[in-house]
Amino acid sequence: MIPAELLRKKRDGAELSHDEIAWFVKGLTAGDITHPQAAAFLMASFIRGLSAAETAALTLAMRDSGTRYTFTTAPKPKVDKHSTGGVGDKISLPLLPLVAACGVAVPMISGRGLGHTGGTVDKLESANVNMDVDNKRGSELLAKHGGFFAKQTSDIAPADRILYHLRDVTGTVESKELITASILSKKFTEDLDALVIDLKVGKGAFMDSLDKAQALAETMIGVAKEVGLRMRILFTSMEEPLGAKIGNWLEIEESLDTLENQHTSPQDISELTARLAAAMLIAGGIAPNVNEALNVVHTAWASRKPLDIFHALIAEQGGDLAGSKTKYANLPKKAILAAKDGVITGIHARMVGIAGIMLGAGRQRTEDVLDFGAGIVFHKKCGAEVKQGEEIGYVQGTRTETFEAAVTHIAEAITIEHGSYTKPPMVLDEWDSAQ
Amino acid sequence: MIPAELLRKKRDGAELSHDEIAWFVKGLTAGDITHPQAAAFLMASFIRGLSAAETAALTLAMRDSGTRYTFTTAPKPKVDKHSTGGVGDKISLPLLPLVAACGVAVPMISGRGLGHTGGTVDKLESANVNMDVDNKRGSELLAKHGGFFAKQTSDIAPADRILYHLRDVTGTVESKELITASILSKKFTEDLDALVIDLKVGKGAFMDSLDKAQALAETMIGVAKEVGLRMRILFTSMEEPLGAKIGNWLEIEESLDTLENQHTSPQDISELTARLAAAMLIAGGIAPNVNEALNVVHTAWASRKPLDIFHALIAEQGGDLAGSKTKYANLPKKAILAAKDGVITGIHARMVGIAGIMLGAGRQRTEDVLDFGAGIVFHKKCGAEVKQGEEIGYVQGTRTETFEAAVTHIAEAITIEHGSYTKPPMVLDEWDSAQ
Repeated sequence: MIPAELLRKKRDGAELSHDEIAWFVKGLTAGDITHPQAAAFLMASFIRGLSAAETAALTLAMRDSGTRYTFTTAPKPKVDKHSTGGVGDKISLPLLPLVAACGVAVPMISGRGLGHTGGTVDKLESANVNMDVDNKRGSELLAKHGGFFAKQTSDIAPADRILYHLRDVTGTVESKELITASILSKKFTEDLDALVIDLKVGKGAFMDSLDKAQALAETMIGVAKEVGLRMRILFTSMEEPLGAKIGNWLEIEESLDTLENQHTSPQDISELTARLAAAMLIAGGIAPNVNEALNVVHTAWASRKPLDIFHALIAEQGGDLAGSKTKYANLPKKAILAAKDGVITGIHARMVGIAGIMLGAGRQRTEDVLDFGAGIVFHKKCGAEVKQGEEIGYVQGTRTETFEAAVTHIAEAITIEHGSYTKPPMVLDEWDSAQ
Repeated sequence: MIPAELLRKKRDGAELSHDEIAWFVKGLTAGDITHPQAAAFLMASFIRGLSAAETAALTLAMRDSGTRYTFTTAPKPKVDKHSTGGVGDKISLPLLPLVAACGVAVPMISGRGLGHTGGTVDKLESANVNMDVDNKRGSELLAKHGGFFAKQTSDIAPADRILYHLRDVTGTVESKELITASILSKKFTEDLDALVIDLKVGKGAFMDSLDKAQALAETMIGVAKEVGLRMRILFTSMEEPLGAKIGNWLEIEESLDTLENQHTSPQDISELTARLAAAMLIAGGIAPNVNEALNVVHTAWASRKPLDIFHALIAEQGGDLAGSKTKYANLPKKAILAAKDGVITGIHARMVGIAGIMLGAGRQRTEDVLDFGAGIVFHKKCGAEVKQGEEIGYVQGTRTETFEAAVTHIAEAITIEHGSYTKPPMVLDEWDSAQ
């Protein structure tokens, strides 16, 4: 095969075969296909589109460009959850022990945060959790605890890293097929039986409308069907930040509170965690429908078994929750005050995420160093009545010189109006590749 | 401006502005725009197409990426000819002195041969002609001889060199807009008043049908109109090789014979040279129409003034025609024999060009070293009757180990049939941006 001939074919709108795509991605990873050739491929794929079979072939070729997990120990269904990214989205943390307690094995491999959304790896590293988990160690943790938290190493889908960077610089990011291949190639290295996608929709999300999210979901479901892996997709609202706390350690704290007591946890966190857990039980074949799955989830949650699993797993992975709690207590704080009387009708999640970057809770560039204790805490969220000058929440951290700008930015993200507020539903739609 | 934003715009089919294209090409030349970004631009431009204004902007940006000639000495119209490439196409050599003798100034900058077509630079270097001609030297030669032969240096349109290579590896060669920008960007550095294009059509050419050639011509005329330069395009037949001789020194030899006597020169060489010369006179404003232009051309040709100009110019540029003639005389030869009785109805020009590469008369790769004396001579061409075993022509050169394969290849390129043969017209069509 000759790279230019393959590019010519895609250029003219023809469908590439599984073997052609596999050959191209293998060559790219080996350095035989050059970055300009890959860039031309991305542009042609963007404009001409990729069929479900092509997208599946690209996903599998990218998955196979590096190492893969193969777990031998787990008789349980192996299911993971991927979120397309939100602000304050710490759901992975309570979710893993909750579904593990219900009989699903969760090999959870996550990335770092970049831009306005946080990353599970950074959150857990704020509590010193060691996330270097190889195949052997992963098998042990799956057998012992029903799950593990791992970080994506450079061995996982290296072709994705090349293409991800090239998409960024060549203006080919917003392709639903290329997004699908990027997300799924990494998740498919986890030796999964099923995958749940939390597809965020709204002002704080990459997909700002349900239409766009559904178009991406169709592509993802197409690939799942092509490769024979069950996929369940929840379309969930991402307008205001999730929960009351945003920041790496702060989100561990809120996760612990959530596992401690479902009913005192912020309502959005509680609902989304339960719904995603139910989806994982259904996708894993443990429960037949949402109602029955939710019953199993609520029973497990009330048993405190998930909290025990979380503590045991974090300890086994080297984390120190008590020590971190002490370490990040009593940080400098600055209040966020209500600009006027009224009802909070909006907290712009993306703007709050940007404020998090200002404080050092998130990264603008890969090389930025985080302040693990930094973040934002809301006392009041959408629907709450406030008086002018009342404390809506506060920022905290060690970089106090950033407080003023961050607080101003957050105040601008908050809309206060006279009148009433109706909360959008948390789950907007739910799809399943098996239905 | 941000490269990815500009690529996004072209990706979605919008028209880029003159300034955007100029900025992109300038950045590419400076190294601020990366090769992957340029590759993505080429693919998007190929699929979405470029408007006449975009193609003109790209052409001018590429022209301005390096040095340009500005001649101050010539009151005569400055006109050059570009051929899209044929086998045995040595027309530039007799053409320059012929039109110079008619009062047109010809600053002729050429490239080397690559693939099955030859290059003017290689041909003249077989006679030791020094083709490093800078602006000052060019002005002198224009004033003294009415023209000069120069080779394209790395200072000329460096952006074209980058894009040319990237088109090759990314499968984006066959775009009429990108071809147009590549050709014209280089020619437009010559400070021209007008340009004549010899657009080859047929089995030996890049464009194998008149339709395709006309589509390319439309794009070229569009750019000429945008930039206000007169362009005349001749669509000429390239089925069998041009003339009787193919090879670097051999084509100098045939050019000398042609200038010596128009009437004993091969008919195709004589006709094409006269028609292109007439086109240059018309484009330069020296003659109003083809008939009047041809009268001027034939009169000049008969005067032997063109032959004198050629000798004087070559001598002034350091060439040694007499010495080269001695040097390449009496080279080893091998006959090409007729496979059967009949009439020659086809000599596949591209296949003959490939045989030339085998012999060392042409290059497969840029770094190949040529055998200047090597080549092919035909005694008989299309329309001639032959007997089985009769000598149709011969190959010559110093690499005798290649003779057998080259002769076999040429024999396969020759079709001999019973019946008659009708020669296609040399000039298939003629367009002018001013008409």
